[in-house]
Amino acid sequence: MIVIMSPNTPTEEIIILKQKIESENNVSINVIQGKEYCILGLIGDTTKVDASKIRANEFVENVEKVQQPYKLVNRLFHPEDTVINVKDASIGGEKLAVIAGPCSVESEEQIVEIAKNVKDSGAKFLRGGAFKPRTSPYSFQGLGTEGLELLKVARQETGLPIVTEIMSEDMIDKFVEDVDVIQVGARNMQNFELLKQLGKTRKPILLKRGLSSTIEELLMSAEYIMSEGNENVILCERGIRTFETYTRNTLDLSAIPAIKKLSHLPVIVDPSHAAGLWWMVEPLAKAAVAVGADGLMIEVHNDPANAKCDGQQSIKSKVFQNLMTDINKMVDMKLDKLQDAVKL
Amino acid sequence: MIVIMSPNTPTEEIIILKQKIESENNVSINVIQGKEYCILGLIGDTTKVDASKIRANEFVENVEKVQQPYKLVNRLFHPEDTVINVKDASIGGEKLAVIAGPCSVESEEQIVEIAKNVKDSGAKFLRGGAFKPRTSPYSFQGLGTEGLELLKVARQETGLPIVTEIMSEDMIDKFVEDVDVIQVGARNMQNFELLKQLGKTRKPILLKRGLSSTIEELLMSAEYIMSEGNENVILCERGIRTFETYTRNTLDLSAIPAIKKLSHLPVIVDPSHAAGLWWMVEPLAKAAVAVGADGLMIEVHNDPANAKCDGQQSIKSKVFQNLMTDINKMVDMKLDKLQDAVKL
Amino acid sequence: MIVIMSPNTPTEEIIILKQKIESENNVSINVIQGKEYCILGLIGDTTKVDASKIRANEFVENVEKVQQPYKLVNRLFHPEDTVINVKDASIGGEKLAVIAGPCSVESEEQIVEIAKNVKDSGAKFLRGGAFKPRTSPYSFQGLGTEGLELLKVARQETGLPIVTEIMSEDMIDKFVEDVDVIQVGARNMQNFELLKQLGKTRKPILLKRGLSSTIEELLMSAEYIMSEGNENVILCERGIRTFETYTRNTLDLSAIPAIKKLSHLPVIVDPSHAAGLWWMVEPLAKAAVAVGADGLMIEVHNDPANAKCDGQQSIKSKVFQNLMTDINKMVDMKLDKLQDAVKL
Amino acid sequence: MIVIMSPNTPTEEIIILKQKIESENNVSINVIQGKEYCILGLIGDTTKVDASKIRANEFVENVEKVQQPYKLVNRLFHPEDTVINVKDASIGGEKLAVIAGPCSVESEEQIVEIAKNVKDSGAKFLRGGAFKPRTSPYSFQGLGTEGLELLKVARQETGLPIVTEIMSEDMIDKFVEDVDVIQVGARNMQNFELLKQLGKTRKPILLKRGLSSTIEELLMSAEYIMSEGNENVILCERGIRTFETYTRNTLDLSAIPAIKKLSHLPVIVDPSHAAGLWWMVEPLAKAAVAVGADGLMIEVHNDPANAKCDGQQSIKSKVFQNLMTDINKMVDMKLDKLQDAVKL
Repeated sequence: MIVIMSPNTPTEEIIILKQKIESENNVSINVIQGKEYCILGLIGDTTKVDASKIRANEFVENVEKVQQPYKLVNRLFHPEDTVINVKDASIGGEKLAVIAGPCSVESEEQIVEIAKNVKDSGAKFLRGGAFKPRTSPYSFQGLGTEGLELLKVARQETGLPIVTEIMSEDMIDKFVEDVDVIQVGARNMQNFELLKQLGKTRKPILLKRGLSSTIEELLMSAEYIMSEGNENVILCERGIRTFETYTRNTLDLSAIPAIKKLSHLPVIVDPSHAAGLWWMVEPLAKAAVAVGADGLMIEVHNDPANAKCDGQQSIKSKVFQNLMTDINKMVDMKLDKLQDAVKL
Repeated sequence: MIVIMSPNTPTEEIIILKQKIESENNVSINVIQGKEYCILGLIGDTTKVDASKIRANEFVENVEKVQQPYKLVNRLFHPEDTVINVKDASIGGEKLAVIAGPCSVESEEQIVEIAKNVKDSGAKFLRGGAFKPRTSPYSFQGLGTEGLELLKVARQETGLPIVTEIMSEDMIDKFVEDVDVIQVGARNMQNFELLKQLGKTRKPILLKRGLSSTIEELLMSAEYIMSEGNENVILCERGIRTFETYTRNTLDLSAIPAIKKLSHLPVIVDPSHAAGLWWMVEPLAKAAVAVGADGLMIEVHNDPANAKCDGQQSIKSKVFQNLMTDINKMVDMKLDKLQDAVKL
Repeated sequence: MIVIMSPNTPTEEIIILKQKIESENNVSINVIQGKEYCILGLIGDTTKVDASKIRANEFVENVEKVQQPYKLVNRLFHPEDTVINVKDASIGGEKLAVIAGPCSVESEEQIVEIAKNVKDSGAKFLRGGAFKPRTSPYSFQGLGTEGLELLKVARQETGLPIVTEIMSEDMIDKFVEDVDVIQVGARNMQNFELLKQLGKTRKPILLKRGLSSTIEELLMSAEYIMSEGNENVILCERGIRTFETYTRNTLDLSAIPAIKKLSHLPVIVDPSHAAGLWWMVEPLAKAAVAVGADGLMIEVHNDPANAKCDGQQSIKSKVFQNLMTDINKMVDMKLDKLQDAVKL
Repeated sequence: MIVIMSPNTPTEEIIILKQKIESENNVSINVIQGKEYCILGLIGDTTKVDASKIRANEFVENVEKVQQPYKLVNRLFHPEDTVINVKDASIGGEKLAVIAGPCSVESEEQIVEIAKNVKDSGAKFLRGGAFKPRTSPYSFQGLGTEGLELLKVARQETGLPIVTEIMSEDMIDKFVEDVDVIQVGARNMQNFELLKQLGKTRKPILLKRGLSSTIEELLMSAEYIMSEGNENVILCERGIRTFETYTRNTLDLSAIPAIKKLSHLPVIVDPSHAAGLWWMVEPLAKAAVAVGADGLMIEVHNDPANAKCDGQQSIKSKVFQNLMTDINKMVDMKLDKLQDAVKL
């Protein structure tokens, strides 16, 4: 961490601040006196140094991080990729994990039919919302616990592990019992109480990036979960909010190589929510595979025009099947290349 | 609501969609056939029509709202300003409501001293965090329930009603008992479960705008609370996330006249969190008064350099006092003008 | 175009406005009277109707477009893809057009060597800046006309057509004579005088999306060029400005399918400028191909660490060669698929 | 400037880079070896050190500025406020400079009438567009040189100095002769060729912030002008592009105190273009005065509903007059306070 002092700070103030920072934190400080500016370089573990506290000193102009503020999610201290196993499936590593299913569970017939279809096309996980976060209180809010029961029926019929979103700490016990992967939605990415409680379970957590969250904040939210002991965190890029209005959000595919450099955790892409347009799912899904995502999360519906929510971004089972055929070719191409590399 | 059909949509598809929308919603539809595009105009109460469902039709190019999607917060159906009374103080109406206090409660001595100072300068409410949402799990998370107790002591000493942030549904009963105004932080603005539960109480709720939330989404979150029966909602602009990095967030003061036009609810401004720089609090607070805010929420600390959080954006009691003097002159100028207008 | 009147607008005002719009524009108007709102639906060619003028009426609440505001770039009126031929190469259509070369021309040796390398790897165009737009007046501003001469030498040595950026109307004649494709940089995307003058030439124009430009604005800037008679416009996505700071800009790959739906013009991707990080060029380039871009623009340097500008985003010739091998496989896979489709 | 090396960089690479930076720039370097990271602190004048060049080194993780990259606009080297005198008026210093007039010049009658009105209300400068940057090539593009002539007539009638926008380098000589303050629009803020040429004149330049430009980039564009010798630069905040769509842009009033801290140049606010809504001009103008702007630029029209452009954001002369009355009271209050301070 680097502390930049305001020009013309009295020397005694620099000395006082240096001593204060050293005594409050387990660090030592090097002082560099430039022509206009004096800077303090903190040496030691600065992960837990509170930069905003230092910034509160009236002679401090700015504080710049050198070390990342996260430890457990940091690839620097955990160089190998994390692979998360869920029943027979896994997320992370060489295989591509595809999660598919409807925006929301609507009926047993609907969820079972879609589950069978996506399984036949090669999906390894079933998604489906039981509790739905909706902008309007007047929109369909999901079937709730009944939806969870229907997901369990679909799991029994297909063997696919189920992924569904949690919206309240009060439901954690039920989700731990019923669900295979617990999803935290974009709007709850910084619901820190929820993250802490999920950190006390050992369930895989699928953590979606908030609409206006930086990559660093996403990783800090993962750190919240891991700091409570749960190491099974999967990250998900799903579009960020920008000035562009043609798409609902702007899918930030650069986040994938960035996260893979910064962290060992697996990261997947949700092309359905990003654009909010069904006809963009296919090209964006392929781009996500090409950019190096560990998996995809795709909304599939048997009758999008009558879906109870988000039909405009759901693709039909047949479209999903064709998409999977193309994606599998892309994955094969990658694996061939990996094998060639091993042979050399 | 206007539905724009894709060019060259077959007439029978238009008829089918028209009948479907009419039968599923209590609306009638006018069809306008243009040169390239056909549009459907929905007549009736469209507040509860689910636009995304219509957008899911493959022949629909776009759906545009005409009516706002909120009802209870809408000024159209409630032309007079809402004034929320809290003990002897109020928010909304002609007086300016000033809420002041430290970022977090640190000790009895600290909170009582600051409470007395801000009261002497003219603040009508005491703020202070007991539960703190922090980006890092390693930062100070607040004193918790002990913090609530200290706030109650400060209230007893000064008579100031207390405003503090809730972070979990599980704490609602305690907050209803102990607190005068319950704050929902920016990161929980779309924690819909929390909003629904708060809607079941009758406590004043101070709802902060999310970092990437539109004005409409803020109003929809207020609608969540009101739709459960709680009409005591105060809105708060606290900066949005943009590309500018000099300030932590960009304070969107245009949101104040916008919200006052769209809604009858009172709206206040938090200049401390917006910029994240103590020396900007004064000019931004004055700008907020000039633009027509119903109140201010300002971080004041007796020793910012040693504050346990957000010291860099807290002003000292003396600075706050001077600010209040200037602001009172601005308010007087406004009231004079109102009186002149009445005389005419 | 739809005009939404404010609630409670007097009927006579609606009639006056209706007549005014009809008389000033070649349109007819349907009036739909809803419960709260009255809307006017304009029928006819509204491309040239000035929405802001209608919005200036005090009783107008909002104006929504139905028809796109561009005509010549619009796929609706020109369904087939435009292919732009430059010497033996082309942009648009089934082949992928790759433009490669250094950020700036530094010397004859440098530009010729890189030109040969990228040609060997399969690039079809040589890029290189002679006039460089730099944020700081103290940074290297390019070799200017000398740089143009060196590009011509490299073209002679390799046969590759050259692409370079224009920064001033005064240079148009020289560029028309010396250069094969004239690039308009992101910062000049709305330099309308420059666009108009370029519209009077017949040279291919590579138009980069502005850092904060919407897709619609990019298309309107292309319309400026085309409206003066030059139909040879190539669009380029190169990242937009968002709150994320890890990458310099956020590459908006959703813009590719969006533009291909809205317009017949070819669209390429510049992954080098988007992220501003050399190690992201490879994954982003592949994602661009997967998402359906018509081409790529990639910065290649023989010695990035000593490049006079943007070395941090340039890849070495060897890395470029490997990238081209992978990309060609992706292209082959696509062509195979197209052939299969034809056989069916 | 601080260079952060990647973890595990070999010591010899650090030594090589240190020597390279020192030899290429007139700086000396301190090396701080932390636990994971090694950082280099550059001492000396780093204004002209090219950070992107250092970032191109493969072992460099990041480069952080300490010193601002601008010199001539920097308050650090020029502590007193710059005041720019134009005929009898001035911008900067204690008085508030108000520039008012129509979006575009439409006729002699129109511009002369508005000029007289705004002068009567207290405006010190007349604005009016002769060359208009429009998103659509089909919109009214201004009267061109005829518009300049009409502005001169209005100046003769009222004595008000005229402010108008330049769109092309080719017009500089004419503008220098005819105009009192040359405006550079938001879309040309980084038209570096134009800035350089304007830097060679001695005319006051009103430089508007680009829609997606940071405060630092605005100051760098001012540095372009000043580095060519023209010290008469006025900055203008006019709204930035964000995700909020209710207003056309988001007026960033925090930019005013930020710029006043960083630079000695005067800075004014354009509330008309920011929101794009006439009824927001009044509250935003007052907020701009309260936040400390040196002036305002306001669109006034005698008949907004029939204005040839931007009528939706223009206020009538009568509204402007009332606004000026209120603003003058605010200014008086400030001057009183200044006088009180002097007396103490």
